[in-house]
Amino acid sequence: MTVLVVGSVALDSVETPFGRADNVLGGSGTFFSAAASHLAPVQLVGVIGADFPLDKLKRAFASRPIDISGLEQADGTSFRWRGRYRHDLNVAETLETHLGVFSNFRPKIPEQFRSAPFVFLGNIDPRLQLDVLTQVAKPKLVACDTMNFWIESRRPDILKLLSHVDLITLNDAEARQLTEEFNLVKAARWIMERGPKHVVIKKGEHGAFMFTNSNVFFAPAYPLESVFDPTGAGDSFAGGFMGYLASTGDLSEANLRRAVVYGSAMGSFAVEKFSVDRLLEITPDDLRSRVGDFHRLVSFEHDA
Amino acid sequence: MTVLVVGSVALDSVETPFGRADNVLGGSGTFFSAAASHLAPVQLVGVIGADFPLDKLKRAFASRPIDISGLEQADGTSFRWRGRYRHDLNVAETLETHLGVFSNFRPKIPEQFRSAPFVFLGNIDPRLQLDVLTQVAKPKLVACDTMNFWIESRRPDILKLLSHVDLITLNDAEARQLTEEFNLVKAARWIMERGPKHVVIKKGEHGAFMFTNSNVFFAPAYPLESVFDPTGAGDSFAGGFMGYLASTGDLSEANLRRAVVYGSAMGSFAVEKFSVDRLLEITPDDLRSRVGDFHRLVSFEHDA
Repeated sequence: MTVLVVGSVALDSVETPFGRADNVLGGSGTFFSAAASHLAPVQLVGVIGADFPLDKLKRAFASRPIDISGLEQADGTSFRWRGRYRHDLNVAETLETHLGVFSNFRPKIPEQFRSAPFVFLGNIDPRLQLDVLTQVAKPKLVACDTMNFWIESRRPDILKLLSHVDLITLNDAEARQLTEEFNLVKAARWIMERGPKHVVIKKGEHGAFMFTNSNVFFAPAYPLESVFDPTGAGDSFAGGFMGYLASTGDLSEANLRRAVVYGSAMGSFAVEKFSVDRLLEITPDDLRSRVGDFHRLVSFEHDA
Repeated sequence: MTVLVVGSVALDSVETPFGRADNVLGGSGTFFSAAASHLAPVQLVGVIGADFPLDKLKRAFASRPIDISGLEQADGTSFRWRGRYRHDLNVAETLETHLGVFSNFRPKIPEQFRSAPFVFLGNIDPRLQLDVLTQVAKPKLVACDTMNFWIESRRPDILKLLSHVDLITLNDAEARQLTEEFNLVKAARWIMERGPKHVVIKKGEHGAFMFTNSNVFFAPAYPLESVFDPTGAGDSFAGGFMGYLASTGDLSEANLRRAVVYGSAMGSFAVEKFSVDRLLEITPDDLRSRVGDFHRLVSFEHDA
């Protein structure tokens, strides 16, 4: 089954303790698509400026099942982000954000994308996320992401959005900010009371929780010896998660758990190189092997 | 099999967002013993001052297999710690530390304790930890803890200690400080190259890693809805870990993994009430049930 994603397609410039990359492919839609496309066909909706190196994106996605016919090229400049990480790679320092054409983005879902069974509303204005939902026909699962900026400026819209999505992914700081609960179990319950049946709280290098009404699942981040560039790890997580669900079409608790692990695996690949470079080179064997590594990482025989 | 622990026995005064407790039982040896004694007999070596409410300790440990004949009562005042936690319960703010008789502590291992097969060197001066090792006869496993203060002031002694222990437990900040490696995989390898076959890195609310030469295991902290007082969680972890190893006498990788989970379970109980209150009231069924919860928390069926 297909995954529709609405998100940013950007040019990133990143400095880490290990090197730097300028004007490389970035944005939530880009990372999500690169990750999800290992598992399921992806339909990408976003906007780029006149200055965007579209050929570069096409070459990157050439061998992948990613339909970019929903990618609008508008007059103006592309979304650019410049950031830096120091040794604590969990903390991104934003040096510059240039929204460009992204600030006037009004997602138009192409006719042929409107029946996608899996929909991921990447981190954009919640009013636009709500608008996307009016354009699609009864998806099997709708998930959304958000961020601190929208929690501050568009709180009523986020609350409305919550009642229309099945699942939300957000990081621990965002969960605390949205719910005003420091404890993540309480924060997750607060969110579930407002709509979503599932809440995925991403903790970066500290792993991810998935809460449902009666269950909680945890997957650690894979303990890599060299994390090269953490940019896009969360979006790659979402791509792996949604891609796995779409590839199986199974929304059971057992399968959602596996989806969290596939998401964590994609997040762990994303950080091994700049941009989507590592996500584009991994093979099905690499993915299977990493999922096996996750299994070994947490497995213990229960004697009690 | 028996566990010998050398550690502090103190009086804690703690403020958390949920309440306060004054002059309650605390110290690494106390938490360790309360946790380990659910699984194996414990021999406790430590020092208390003339002002220590020994009856209170005896009452607390009355029904537990904890031999306190190695607890010396010295002239002077007891070790007292006063601390505060705000909403981020991962961060303790020390308001006052009064070492008292603990500053002149020279552990003397009673004759009847010297053949203990499992030895835990709680967080004291590494010179004293080394001295304890000269007093015991060929334990099956020796583990130690340490802290930032000793890493700064007694680095050469810690390095010497490392070559004499099988396992070390320390938190992530201490691992980074000791090894000058930010990455925990590299930090663990640095430590293993200097002696210990196993390195357990505790990350508080973010769980614990156990590294061996060829393996890595991770157990999350249990996502409790109300963490009441985090004091002693790390020492309770160590108690559950060593107690489980002693109860089974099995040092296989599979059993060490289970020991990490028993440690995590004890840590999760410790934080539910002030002092050792919760650790003293749990039943074997509570423990089995919590270990089962940990299993469900991370379990997924691997399809790859």
